Amino acid sequence: MSIRYISQKLAQQIDEELMSSSGAFSLDQLMELAGLSCAQALAKSYPAKSHKRVMGGDGLVAARHLHMFRYKPTIYLPKPGSKDIYQRLLKQCENLNIPVLKDVEEFKKGLGESDVILDAVFGFSFQPPLRAPFHTVLSAITSTSLPIVSVDIPSGWSVTDGPQPLYTEPDENGNTDSVKTFEPEVLVSLTAPKEGVRGFKGRHWLGGRFVPDELADKFELNLPEYEGVDQVVELPRVE
Amino acid sequence: MSIRYISQKLAQQIDEELMSSSGAFSLDQLMELAGLSCAQALAKSYPAKSHKRVMGGDGLVAARHLHMFRYKPTIYLPKPGSKDIYQRLLKQCENLNIPVLKDVEEFKKGLGESDVILDAVFGFSFQPPLRAPFHTVLSAITSTSLPIVSVDIPSGWSVTDGPQPLYTEPDENGNTDSVKTFEPEVLVSLTAPKEGVRGFKGRHWLGGRFVPDELADKFELNLPEYEGVDQVVELPRVE
Repeated sequence: MSIRYISQKLAQQIDEELMSSSGAFSLDQLMELAGLSCAQALAKSYPAKSHKRVMGGDGLVAARHLHMFRYKPTIYLPKPGSKDIYQRLLKQCENLNIPVLKDVEEFKKGLGESDVILDAVFGFSFQPPLRAPFHTVLSAITSTSLPIVSVDIPSGWSVTDGPQPLYTEPDENGNTDSVKTFEPEVLVSLTAPKEGVRGFKGRHWLGGRFVPDELADKFELNLPEYEGVDQVVELPRVE
Repeated sequence: MSIRYISQKLAQQIDEELMSSSGAFSLDQLMELAGLSCAQALAKSYPAKSHKRVMGGDGLVAARHLHMFRYKPTIYLPKPGSKDIYQRLLKQCENLNIPVLKDVEEFKKGLGESDVILDAVFGFSFQPPLRAPFHTVLSAITSTSLPIVSVDIPSGWSVTDGPQPLYTEPDENGNTDSVKTFEPEVLVSLTAPKEGVRGFKGRHWLGGRFVPDELADKFELNLPEYEGVDQVVELPRVE
């Protein structure tokens, strides 16, 4: 039985169940383990020796663990979150002197000094069309030849249908821009892969080794077995 | 430069700094990473193949991760905590059908069906004398020949002076009992080893790969380098 590709709705439902009073997980716990999974997947795909400089689009927890794994992460935050947890995760990165960029021009410059991109900009709740400044962010990413590690859904892809023609919001004259999407070299799916990445042909890791067996059974996720103490497991390549 | 053995007071100060507004870590985050370290250290010392049944004295987070690593943990809780986080961590274990024992007689029986003990009963804030039911717990542990993995400080040891003659609280006639202490096969020190384990001769892991460099420098912890994505690093054996 192969792994289940889940809908956006089911992904949200699983998160809600994990954090409900019966699931009992806190957001802090889940984000910590998810971010650690992303950092491990990147490290298993691109060793620090050859790919030390990681440009993270969001991904504060992953960046902190990558620092601990002796990478040199930089974080670009297109829309800094205002929630308390976000502020705390940001402070933890600042305490490690991880540079945090807030301007898209700095981000473009930073890409020129990076070895690999960790694309955690959108996540599985993205809905088109593209709003500012994400148009510029996405164009900046697609215009590099750096290897990209995407989390859950490559930025700009539809969670349901994968890579699709992508447009910006209409301006005051009703005009939209078409935006190129990209296929990352590596994908990290958290909890379970989403429907939109069904045709993804790159290296694919599953992370989030915290889903209770009963929850996985209930939703027929057919998760593969992780090895040893790993927080990620590689999925077979799609031909 | 060798690693620093820290006092109980400094251990508490480091925890406080990590969780202060400037450190910005939440208790949930630190317990998650610390518990994961303990589970990894046990797994690297005693493979699930030969030591599947783990009896945990406390250690709720470690037990959950051990379940994920395909061990069969059981938890004994001599004094179930009332704090919200404790209740949530307990619920997470119950959701995985991890047996949770609350009675010392069940614990003694459970030891007979275990392959290894994870001793997280006391932690680094223990102060003698021994209060009930810990006298019975400790005697039950010392009377088995199972390998023991202790966290931070083997239960009953002084955090400052290591293994010491240990007595129970005086009863109504002023009588105390002498209690045997033990030397575990394996020790997991979290953040930094404590003064009391300076002479420990077994296998010694350091865990808690979250201490910011500046904090480690400030307290001259001289932490060793972790390998790859490991959450624990083995310390050289003491001759």
